[in-house]
Amino acid sequence: MSEKALPFGIAEFQERLAKTKQSMDARGIDVLVAADPANMNYLTGYDGWSFYTPQVVIVARDLDQPICIVRQMDVNGGRVTTYLDDDNMIGFPDTYVQSTERHAMDWIAEEMVRRGIHTGTIGVEMDAYYYTAASHAALVRGLPNATVVDATALVNWVRVIKSPQEIEYMRRAARIVEKTMQIAYDFIEPGVRQCDAAAAIYQSEISGTPEHGGDYTSLVPMLPTGVGTSTPHLTWTDQPFVSGEATILELGGAHHHYHCPMARTMHLGQPPQKLLDTSEIVMEGVAAALDTVKPGNTCEEVEASWRHSIGRHGLSKESRLGYSTGVNYPPDWGEHTLSLRPGDKTVLQTNMTIHLIAGIWMDDWGIEISECFRVSEDGCEKLCDYPQALYVKD
Amino acid sequence: MSEKALPFGIAEFQERLAKTKQSMDARGIDVLVAADPANMNYLTGYDGWSFYTPQVVIVARDLDQPICIVRQMDVNGGRVTTYLDDDNMIGFPDTYVQSTERHAMDWIAEEMVRRGIHTGTIGVEMDAYYYTAASHAALVRGLPNATVVDATALVNWVRVIKSPQEIEYMRRAARIVEKTMQIAYDFIEPGVRQCDAAAAIYQSEISGTPEHGGDYTSLVPMLPTGVGTSTPHLTWTDQPFVSGEATILELGGAHHHYHCPMARTMHLGQPPQKLLDTSEIVMEGVAAALDTVKPGNTCEEVEASWRHSIGRHGLSKESRLGYSTGVNYPPDWGEHTLSLRPGDKTVLQTNMTIHLIAGIWMDDWGIEISECFRVSEDGCEKLCDYPQALYVKD
Repeated sequence: MSEKALPFGIAEFQERLAKTKQSMDARGIDVLVAADPANMNYLTGYDGWSFYTPQVVIVARDLDQPICIVRQMDVNGGRVTTYLDDDNMIGFPDTYVQSTERHAMDWIAEEMVRRGIHTGTIGVEMDAYYYTAASHAALVRGLPNATVVDATALVNWVRVIKSPQEIEYMRRAARIVEKTMQIAYDFIEPGVRQCDAAAAIYQSEISGTPEHGGDYTSLVPMLPTGVGTSTPHLTWTDQPFVSGEATILELGGAHHHYHCPMARTMHLGQPPQKLLDTSEIVMEGVAAALDTVKPGNTCEEVEASWRHSIGRHGLSKESRLGYSTGVNYPPDWGEHTLSLRPGDKTVLQTNMTIHLIAGIWMDDWGIEISECFRVSEDGCEKLCDYPQALYVKD
Repeated sequence: MSEKALPFGIAEFQERLAKTKQSMDARGIDVLVAADPANMNYLTGYDGWSFYTPQVVIVARDLDQPICIVRQMDVNGGRVTTYLDDDNMIGFPDTYVQSTERHAMDWIAEEMVRRGIHTGTIGVEMDAYYYTAASHAALVRGLPNATVVDATALVNWVRVIKSPQEIEYMRRAARIVEKTMQIAYDFIEPGVRQCDAAAAIYQSEISGTPEHGGDYTSLVPMLPTGVGTSTPHLTWTDQPFVSGEATILELGGAHHHYHCPMARTMHLGQPPQKLLDTSEIVMEGVAAALDTVKPGNTCEEVEASWRHSIGRHGLSKESRLGYSTGVNYPPDWGEHTLSLRPGDKTVLQTNMTIHLIAGIWMDDWGIEISECFRVSEDGCEKLCDYPQALYVKD
């Protein structure tokens, strides 16, 4: 193995691999085929905008190193970004790319046969983005001697507790999103086009801080405005912001693909009383939830604190209150493990990192206030230092 | 149907629907379940960064309007962005989001049963991004009385010939990427951090022009530099550009999600002779290929012109030379229909739009020069007016 300037040392990659193999053992999985780009990155360092063609990292119980298979033209990218030996960083020919006659997963299955890792119990990430129905069909067809089982989120659950280095990257991301939220607030005025604000926001996110550059975020900046605040995932238009309207800012910072998201709501001109009142209720609810965060408590207990708090004011929220976050790629910075919602009995542990996002969406308006936090040794450490408020700009 | 300020008139949506139904008829498909966000947008106008949860547009031969199903909190976004009646713009409950106990496709299948569109031959997009193996398994499980068949790219092939309005949006995107390429060239200097250049580039892409705002592009700006130019899909780091190194700029403009990509290569300081020589060969090859573009010729004929031209200089390129582009969402602005490569016998027709990308990647260096063009009535119309060259900055 060559020593390269990777974001993590080889020892950390080896620890991740060991934990993954432990989890595979516990579930009787001999070979794991991971297609989630964040899991690929986590296991090997692989980093590139190449997930639009099939690609996988394969962990075999009997092999010391994972095998990363991408499109041939991306192999050099793997040589730059992974710790893998050249023999384990390989590519499939370009004739397999978006072909109607053959599928890249055909080649990947053939390669597994060539390497003798095509039998036993093989886990696949059935619900990972980019692991399409066609990918699965081709892989299963090519592995007739294996028992293929669902291993969705197996690696995600290994990722759920962050190392000191991962926490450090998330703290850097927090500095980026704090700075960016301020830029958004300063930039947005009546008459400014939404696209220009989105541009300024993304400029800040990607540029980062003088000390640490930013990365693309797994969601683009969300800034629904006016009636658009009644729904969370509209992106910008080229229409201007209007006085008398609210804008929800759901932004993120990212460093080495580790995210720190933050949401705030601002209003141009004097806000309506219902928005002011609701923001108070939401902040009280967020405080109640964060007060419940400590190792040993469960996800649903945190949500219950929120639910109880806002319920006393007659408010309710059907959607989940938050989710684990960390390293990720588009389209989602959520980790697809724990959620803050009823029924999620995951016990909080130190160095879990969670985005608590209190979003209330009504018929024609809404509000969001969020905090990304680390479960600390005895409570909750907010990663951002950015006051909660309904931000009003007159 | 309400008349809203959508990017396309209802008549155009109805024409798209009619063509889709024609194609369904030709393949004996009664009901089509489209999960590709670009296809969802194309058929209904639906637009939002919500494709990180399952969502579909359903076209049933016997129904006048498509049905769009998204996460409940995104329904209001659909009310803003689609032409659909409220009854056809619906959501699944949040308990189905990233749950280990139930899948959103369970609910979608149940809704199809409720609406009586659960029998006959049902087409699904087996290889669409975000249509995961788990999505497919849940849908098939929920439709026991249907014959489920692969309809990957059925709608993509309807999209392949652009309307005048679509061409207009791509021309606007061309203005955006021209402006952005110039900004990239001006910004990149020895000592400038890559992340700051990426930030300036994306700022320009999203801001757009004073007349027309930009949108997020389906690929982030690619700017591999130095040895990174040996591979196309590395994104930026926070390291500075270095004198004596090349940088490949593969950028895009987007307007209403319609893309115009462009690639150029620049070099800081005097370039090595091999890069100069190769750029000349590449430009000659691109010209030969573009000369072959006209209605009636095939995709493989265009590629053959390129192959023959560079072959005379001893160069070759294994990967495809280009692909159809237009409306799209991350992670790819390619349309997954025609490719410029041997064996692709698709006959060019007027108003196809293609990104011809001549990328040569060697062991430790590379070059890219591209043109996005429209197949015109009698030849080829380049969408961008930006000179081809190896850009050298001393």
